[in-house]
Amino acid sequence: MRKTDLSEATCPVARSLGEVGDWWSLLIVRDALNGVSRFSDFQRSLGCARNILSARLSKLVEAGVLVTEPASDGSLYHQYRLTEKGKALRVALVALRQWGEAYLFDEEEERLQLVDTKDRKAVAPLEMRAHDGRALTVDEVEVQSTSGAA
Amino acid sequence: MRKTDLSEATCPVARSLGEVGDWWSLLIVRDALNGVSRFSDFQRSLGCARNILSARLSKLVEAGVLVTEPASDGSLYHQYRLTEKGKALRVALVALRQWGEAYLFDEEEERLQLVDTKDRKAVAPLEMRAHDGRALTVDEVEVQSTSGAA
Repeated sequence: MRKTDLSEATCPVARSLGEVGDWWSLLIVRDALNGVSRFSDFQRSLGCARNILSARLSKLVEAGVLVTEPASDGSLYHQYRLTEKGKALRVALVALRQWGEAYLFDEEEERLQLVDTKDRKAVAPLEMRAHDGRALTVDEVEVQSTSGAA
Repeated sequence: MRKTDLSEATCPVARSLGEVGDWWSLLIVRDALNGVSRFSDFQRSLGCARNILSARLSKLVEAGVLVTEPASDGSLYHQYRLTEKGKALRVALVALRQWGEAYLFDEEEERLQLVDTKDRKAVAPLEMRAHDGRALTVDEVEVQSTSGAA
């Protein structure tokens, strides 16, 4: 698959994705979270080929991340809407965004930021916390199987 | 690129990635966070072709996510270590993991879980919070440019 250079993108999520993988699907979810619902608008925003976009949208519908519904303007086109499962990817996108902001932007560089709609201030950095609310560093967590094996 | 079916993986991160994109790089980071440092161990864990793994590792070194260093056992091989930038991806992996846990596993299904090393209990779900600590829902955030434009 053709790779697009996202290393100069204004959106930190896009930049993170350009750095660590091929992520059209998450970019579609990002756009959908921002209110994009129509094929042509996804295409305009993402600038990717119709066939790639079409394949990715179908895959997201199959996965239950997006559903299709009749266009709200009554036209013959359909539009895409995030399911609860799709909306729940917001946290992962916030995490990728904050990583990108921390490591892939110069301090004064213009960027798209995520703000709360009440105060219009940037969302706080996500924090890992234990079951009892203790803040956890990267070195205080570990993977283990639910079956008990490490 | 060949796609591997990750939809039945035990690790929720892998399952999320299988559902929403092609993610060898983040899987390498996941393994590195779990202590993997040698090429052969990455290969064993990921089961991907040597040339793909080699390309991804080089890209992560170029990106400053990993650095190479002499093997700790004094052998001729080198090993890979996460930088601070690489370790900071932990939060994104936790977010993807938690999404996978919520949407891609049956309740009783065995999985790899992330626990805090002190109490051995699962890490709490990540929460979006405003600058002043208010918990935020998906619908209470919005993207805006730092230049002021929406």
